[in-house]
Amino acid sequence: MANPTAAMLVIGDEILSGRTRDANMHFLAGELTKQGIDLKEVRIVSDDAPAIEAAVKALSQAHDHVFTSGGIGPTHDDITADCIARAFDAAIDIRADARALLEAHYKNSGLELNPARLRMARIPDGATLIDNPVSTAPGFTIANVHVMAGVPSVFQAMVASVLPGLTGGSPLLSQTLRVHRGEGDIAGPLAALAADFPDLAIGSYPFQINGAFGANIVVRGTDGAQVDAAVTRLAKEFEL
Amino acid sequence: MANPTAAMLVIGDEILSGRTRDANMHFLAGELTKQGIDLKEVRIVSDDAPAIEAAVKALSQAHDHVFTSGGIGPTHDDITADCIARAFDAAIDIRADARALLEAHYKNSGLELNPARLRMARIPDGATLIDNPVSTAPGFTIANVHVMAGVPSVFQAMVASVLPGLTGGSPLLSQTLRVHRGEGDIAGPLAALAADFPDLAIGSYPFQINGAFGANIVVRGTDGAQVDAAVTRLAKEFEL
Repeated sequence: MANPTAAMLVIGDEILSGRTRDANMHFLAGELTKQGIDLKEVRIVSDDAPAIEAAVKALSQAHDHVFTSGGIGPTHDDITADCIARAFDAAIDIRADARALLEAHYKNSGLELNPARLRMARIPDGATLIDNPVSTAPGFTIANVHVMAGVPSVFQAMVASVLPGLTGGSPLLSQTLRVHRGEGDIAGPLAALAADFPDLAIGSYPFQINGAFGANIVVRGTDGAQVDAAVTRLAKEFEL
Repeated sequence: MANPTAAMLVIGDEILSGRTRDANMHFLAGELTKQGIDLKEVRIVSDDAPAIEAAVKALSQAHDHVFTSGGIGPTHDDITADCIARAFDAAIDIRADARALLEAHYKNSGLELNPARLRMARIPDGATLIDNPVSTAPGFTIANVHVMAGVPSVFQAMVASVLPGLTGGSPLLSQTLRVHRGEGDIAGPLAALAADFPDLAIGSYPFQINGAFGANIVVRGTDGAQVDAAVTRLAKEFEL
């Protein structure tokens, strides 16, 4: 049976302007691979309501799971929760369960639960809260969309809350061979190997070091014996 | 006048599986910002023909420029050029101009121009070649889509070939204020500032260091005097 598929939506002007380098995508990709959920597509859009809504709808329809990152804090540019509510025609307001979490947290911290912070309790009707052990303000799951914070420590904690509850597939196994030849010399044998192992994904990632060409050949699949057999054959062909 | 808009399409299973962390997006984002071209959207798709075709069509219609990265090498998983030709209903075959470049290069290098390497001369009819000073095999531009290699050194060289020929807009200027208060405390003043400076984009990016909360406030715009005025007002309000 094919593995479940996933998409990620990253929301943030700061990544598109080149100010910040996204870290959440790489983290999520690794976690999903371990769980046997195939990340098929990532989109990064700006803090723009129509762009967020359209992307959420398209990705939610096309994949089993969607993970979003960013735009759920207390400031005026945090519009993700409202956009996702609109995408699912769900009402959204400050919700009692989320408000109670924030009240307890800010009471302990001595900080004021002002209107800006209360915005973080805006949760669409019908959504389930995602636990945030780092800074309390929750994420949420609505339909097949998991809405999480952009701050990497919080994002990672939320992923750890969500993933164990999802049905995974067969974890993708991979082995890498490093070959010190140009891709043009190894392309023929690789194509033949790919034809003989249709269930494996065989990728070639070239590099150049001190003027010498080489490639990392990555063999991926869910059947460890097949991955082993393909890598053994390659190592023999390339006399490694 | 509004700046031209751009999108990027990254093609590669290796990024979606978490094996590799993409570097080209961050580089391109910075270069486009300097040139006054607004990067509005990035999509990352796997080495899958229908996914590549659909994404190229959608992005090409929605934006002034599209930049692609990855999938134009000599191996069986390099399918980008053929997908882009199909997206534009263009014929594609080994083209004489690209073949001549490769012949000269491989003659000098003593390596064989075998069928795998010749695949890198597959260029759609009507496309313009993009110079590759690093490893010769060219990229190409068709309609508003610039098709470039995924290897970062080659990608960067191709961007340097393409960008000077594009009409830019007003470069986006930005200033950052680092504030050692929680986002919830600064959200009110930021929203008021955003309302008073509708031409500026004001973002807040929280951080947490040793348990203390803070935020980087980034003010962006094309009018330097406005950016200055907004940052000066913020610094005063937050007594920095």
